[in-house]
Amino acid sequence: MISGERFSVIYRLVGSEKEAIKKALDICLEQTVEFPEELVPRGMIRDHVVGRIESVTPISDVSVRDGLCGRTGTEAGATAGVCAGTASATEGSRPSCRVTISYAVETTSGELTQLLNVIFGNISIKPGIVVEEICLPESLLKSFRGPRFGRQGLRKLLGVPHRPLLFTALKPMGLSAAELAKMAYECALGGIDIIKDDHGLTNQVFAPYEERVRLCAEAVAKANRETGFNAIYVPNVTAPYNQLFQRARFAKEVGAQGLMISPALAGLDTMRELADDDSLALPIFSHPAFQGSYVTSAENGISHFALFGQITRLAGADGVVYPNFGGRFSFSREECRRIAEGTETPMGHIQPIFPCPGGGMSLEAIPDMLQVYGRDVTFLIGGGLFRHGPNLVENCRYFREMVEKMV
Amino acid sequence: MISGERFSVIYRLVGSEKEAIKKALDICLEQTVEFPEELVPRGMIRDHVVGRIESVTPISDVSVRDGLCGRTGTEAGATAGVCAGTASATEGSRPSCRVTISYAVETTSGELTQLLNVIFGNISIKPGIVVEEICLPESLLKSFRGPRFGRQGLRKLLGVPHRPLLFTALKPMGLSAAELAKMAYECALGGIDIIKDDHGLTNQVFAPYEERVRLCAEAVAKANRETGFNAIYVPNVTAPYNQLFQRARFAKEVGAQGLMISPALAGLDTMRELADDDSLALPIFSHPAFQGSYVTSAENGISHFALFGQITRLAGADGVVYPNFGGRFSFSREECRRIAEGTETPMGHIQPIFPCPGGGMSLEAIPDMLQVYGRDVTFLIGGGLFRHGPNLVENCRYFREMVEKMV
Repeated sequence: MISGERFSVIYRLVGSEKEAIKKALDICLEQTVEFPEELVPRGMIRDHVVGRIESVTPISDVSVRDGLCGRTGTEAGATAGVCAGTASATEGSRPSCRVTISYAVETTSGELTQLLNVIFGNISIKPGIVVEEICLPESLLKSFRGPRFGRQGLRKLLGVPHRPLLFTALKPMGLSAAELAKMAYECALGGIDIIKDDHGLTNQVFAPYEERVRLCAEAVAKANRETGFNAIYVPNVTAPYNQLFQRARFAKEVGAQGLMISPALAGLDTMRELADDDSLALPIFSHPAFQGSYVTSAENGISHFALFGQITRLAGADGVVYPNFGGRFSFSREECRRIAEGTETPMGHIQPIFPCPGGGMSLEAIPDMLQVYGRDVTFLIGGGLFRHGPNLVENCRYFREMVEKMV
Repeated sequence: MISGERFSVIYRLVGSEKEAIKKALDICLEQTVEFPEELVPRGMIRDHVVGRIESVTPISDVSVRDGLCGRTGTEAGATAGVCAGTASATEGSRPSCRVTISYAVETTSGELTQLLNVIFGNISIKPGIVVEEICLPESLLKSFRGPRFGRQGLRKLLGVPHRPLLFTALKPMGLSAAELAKMAYECALGGIDIIKDDHGLTNQVFAPYEERVRLCAEAVAKANRETGFNAIYVPNVTAPYNQLFQRARFAKEVGAQGLMISPALAGLDTMRELADDDSLALPIFSHPAFQGSYVTSAENGISHFALFGQITRLAGADGVVYPNFGGRFSFSREECRRIAEGTETPMGHIQPIFPCPGGGMSLEAIPDMLQVYGRDVTFLIGGGLFRHGPNLVENCRYFREMVEKMV
């Protein structure tokens, strides 16, 4: 009944080594049997179902850490090479330890919802616990298809083999569907690759979903005929449970070529289902709305690497939108670098995806961003494109030429 | 196109009054148009779509706060009486302000997903912002059915008109379906009202979903025939997107009389859909797994009152599970009291629901809990029931008699 295969999670636990071990023992029970230690039945449950501490390393001794996952992997027989991340930069000032805990693969039932529950379900409520990295053996990874397109597939779809991708958002909320479509047309004409709805556009009376999506998809197709480019329009399908797939199918029917969803609002596994749906077969973009609380505290939550990188990939996104450093949000350069690492860290057959930093980005920030991210990045500029000058098409052309010249 | 109806959110913003106003102005843009201020089109968008600061009150001056919602309500014409909460106890030590911001009802499109996005979507990523309370006019509340049963309906279903409800969880993971069903039988025989799966039980090989749910539902029905009580079995239906409703329907078919879901894993709106489904028509219990990051920081996130009270009710739960004070989690007595307030604060037609404090609770804690919660509470005891003595039926009887004697 138990294969012996285990996956592991690297946690950062606030406290001294002694405190961290106590906390880790508690996590081993809390995330599995949720039962008083002395009452846990002997045999299979105690030996396999309960989590197991694999290592405890005080945080200053970071160099030791990189080897841990490999060790667990060897023991589990299959995770070697899955974890290649480096240490997070967001370490608090209080003493803390990096603790690796392994769990039986069977506890997850091969479900993303239950995998997340084992990783961070109840302990999300306990203070001083951060999920740094997850290390999954092939026996568990095989339950997940991951991104359908990934970096390579998205580049092929867009016909952009090498340079960074250009990404923008249609806004502000309150414009009519026709006004948003005109904007989509101008952006595509100016050479933007990916044109998405602002994440706040759903089915408001100002620009109802079906009208907006039809007009915007047509506008981008028209521009493509004129330019010969392959720009794609990506509507936001974050919606009530019973309307989400309906909206996605409508989008596909009228020619949208990608879908955006905010997984913290609609469910991470809803995004996974959207990505896995063979009748849609569209690239998926993940938006971070309502997801911030997992990363705003240095002592609680999930690391940028694991949340925006590993988990977002497991949940099938081909691109992950997040706030860039230096914009109007507060992510640091190092946190952003770690996200980019998470989008490409080896995870068996789960493909690398595009980091899509945005959020108050300006054209002026691009040279610096290229230094941090390299070519495999999607520059998401919304309002900044309008700020550059009065002619949107010209602004987009300037943006594109700037990027083309740089790489 | 714009009705003039507005809803409002009371935020706690870290910073001096001047800093809070700056932050609030940013929130007004970020949560709606997400566009540079100087480029926001004049007219309807600038006047109505952009959020509006209604009041700013330094946090020490708490007494002023209670009137704010009423004022916004009068202006909006419909929210009067909706906000009756009192100040949160989790105020940080840094200076902060309580700021009320109103938004046009139309920005939400009447969707729970988009309502949550306007309340806390992008700003979940910005530091120093806590959602304290939401104040919704009837024009927006009418989009939501809320709990189908509520306190009154659940009491009627269980045949328990007055006393606190008795709640337990089947565990540990690793037991077989037959072993869990035996436990369910004994708990029902001992007089427990609500017997749920542990939230980590999904479809593991140890006790596959259909086998477990069928056996447990039968076991509780058998006990009810013997006792004359109306105990209900509540399986956990947290599951992948494409299996969740299938599991819920199966549960209904085999006689389960309630459903539990972890909304942070499956989606808050998924819970709403589950509650609204007339073919199911079962009471819903919300579990806090993976939800903790919204409340673990004093300076970021959502208040206990709003998250476990108001939002959980809007999303259709009839009972909200959360960690009690004094157990193995770290919620304070005051935070728990605020949750209880959130479960019953007036919200138009949205019914009050049961607070279900649990998590490392012992029988000894009950007298103190009665003082805090009164009679309208559900005592959730899991492992603690086993600790009391070797005979589970006797332990349950002791639990029930203890509660019956006290009220």
